[in-house]
Order: sequence, then C-alpha cells, then structure tokens
Amino acid sequence: MPALIRAAHVSKPRTPKIFTTPADAARAFYEAFEARDVEAMMATWAEDEEIVCVHPGGSRLVGYSAVRSGWEQVFAGEARLRFRVDEIVTIETVGLAMQSAVEHISTAGDDTERGAAMCTNVFLRTPLGWRLVMHHASPAAAKPASDVRGPLH
Amino acid sequence: MPALIRAAHVSKPRTPKIFTTPADAARAFYEAFEARDVEAMMATWAEDEEIVCVHPGGSRLVGYSAVRSGWEQVFAGEARLRFRVDEIVTIETVGLAMQSAVEHISTAGDDTERGAAMCTNVFLRTPLGWRLVMHHASPAAAKPASDVRGPLH
Repeated sequence: MPALIRAAHVSKPRTPKIFTTPADAARAFYEAFEARDVEAMMATWAEDEEIVCVHPGGSRLVGYSAVRSGWEQVFAGEARLRFRVDEIVTIETVGLAMQSAVEHISTAGDDTERGAAMCTNVFLRTPLGWRLVMHHASPAAAKPASDVRGPLH
Repeated sequence: MPALIRAAHVSKPRTPKIFTTPADAARAFYEAFEARDVEAMMATWAEDEEIVCVHPGGSRLVGYSAVRSGWEQVFAGEARLRFRVDEIVTIETVGLAMQSAVEHISTAGDDTERGAAMCTNVFLRTPLGWRLVMHHASPAAAKPASDVRGPLH
C-alpha cells in the first residue's frame, strides 16, 4: 500500500533507526551527543514515561519529554564535545542490557581531556530495536580509586 | 541427606538469602548498608567479575573483590547512615531489572538530611535469586532541576 507508506513518511520525516544490539544504540547515542542532534539523540531512547537521565550536574530527568528538554538545554549551551569511551563493562540479557563505562571528554578541535565521567547506560529491547531507558553520568574522582569515601557515603 | 546439609551449613555459616524480586534485593542492600554489615551487603551482589559499583566520590570499582573492599572501607570510616529511598522508577524484564531512585541520607539518631544522591541499581536474576550487578550513586544537584548543565556535559 504505497499511499499509506507515503503518508507515514510525510508525518515522520526521519525514519527511526532500528538498533539491533545495545552496542549499536550506545554508538548512536554518542554520535548524536557529539553532533548535538536532538532528533538523533531521542531516536536512541525508548518512547516511554519510565526513562531516566542523570546529567553530571546531578539533576535527574524522568520521562520522554523531560529527557528531551534536558538534551535541548545541553546542546544549546555547551561547546561541541568529543567522547572517548573505554573500560566498558556490559551485562546483557534477552530483554535488557547494562553498560558501564568511563567517558573521556574533550572539546572538538582540542584533544586535551576536559574531564572524565562515570557512566551507566541501560538499554531495553523494544519492538523498534534496542533503546536507552537510563543514562546516568557523574564526574569521575580526581583522587585515587582506593579512596572510595565520597561526601555522602 | 542430613549429613550433607550439616556439612554445607558448617562451611557456610550464613546461608545466603534468595531474593525472589529485585525489590527484595534492593531492600536487603539498604538494610546491609545501614547495618554496615559487609557479609549481608555482599550477599546482595552477584558473585561475578562484571559487577560495578560507583560511589558518590566518583570512584568506580569493578569485580567482586574490589566491590567488597570498597564496602569494607565505606563501613569502616563513616558514621552510621540511614536511607530514605523515594522517587523510584523501575524497569523489569525476566532476567535483568533497573531501579532508579533518590537516596535521602541522614545519620543514625539525627533526622536532619545530610544530603541526597541519585542512584541507579541494576539487578540480575541468577540461580541464587535476584542480585545486584551495578550500584551507581552520585551527589544530587543542589540547583533546580531545570538547569541540567553540569561541569562536564
């Protein structure tokens, strides 16, 4: 039914990508972050009210529209960032996957590391492929890893 | 076979609890935290090298022995803490579950809130019931939630 297909295409100018693995969704997440592309970023998230995003400043955003507004603010106000993600630990089951990693952050055009963040990403397998349901990033410790005592616990 | 049961009991003085839901494991985690009981704490974690614990100070510990050492340090050095956990968001599948929450932290005997942390817990269904594979806690923002820009991104 070409007419129906065309109508769907008109109402949704960018067909959402299907991420067949959590790693594909993670790659698209960081590409969208570097490109400061809100549409591409939100295409990596599940369209759900139970999604959660914690930015390094400590704010927690819950639900699709709050998470979207958060990225709009981040992309509007910040320098263009580059991410190198390493020390990746993953746990994957048939329906949900967890990725823990260290994000090394620099500014585009300057390779000096601006800082590092500890990051937990959780992906859900949806009918539209793997999508983010949680991104929790917090500043990495400047002190040695052996001293685990923070200001709270 | 009572002899076998007795032998197993001798070699493992505390039979590990079977947590039949992620919420049961989460409850036991905070009870162990408040009691500063390393054995009870580690009984809530999967015995796995892929487990990850990020304390609010920003250190990331990977693997069972590193995670255990981290809790030993936290419990040795700190005041006895009390947790009130709210704003819980959960996503649960058959094998893995995610819990995002806000931890309100006070010191035992003093109800004044000492601080709050954003917390992500991930639980895996193992042959021994639901166990933690990830705990990521970071200080909550003092600023309003509408300003999501942190020092990193």
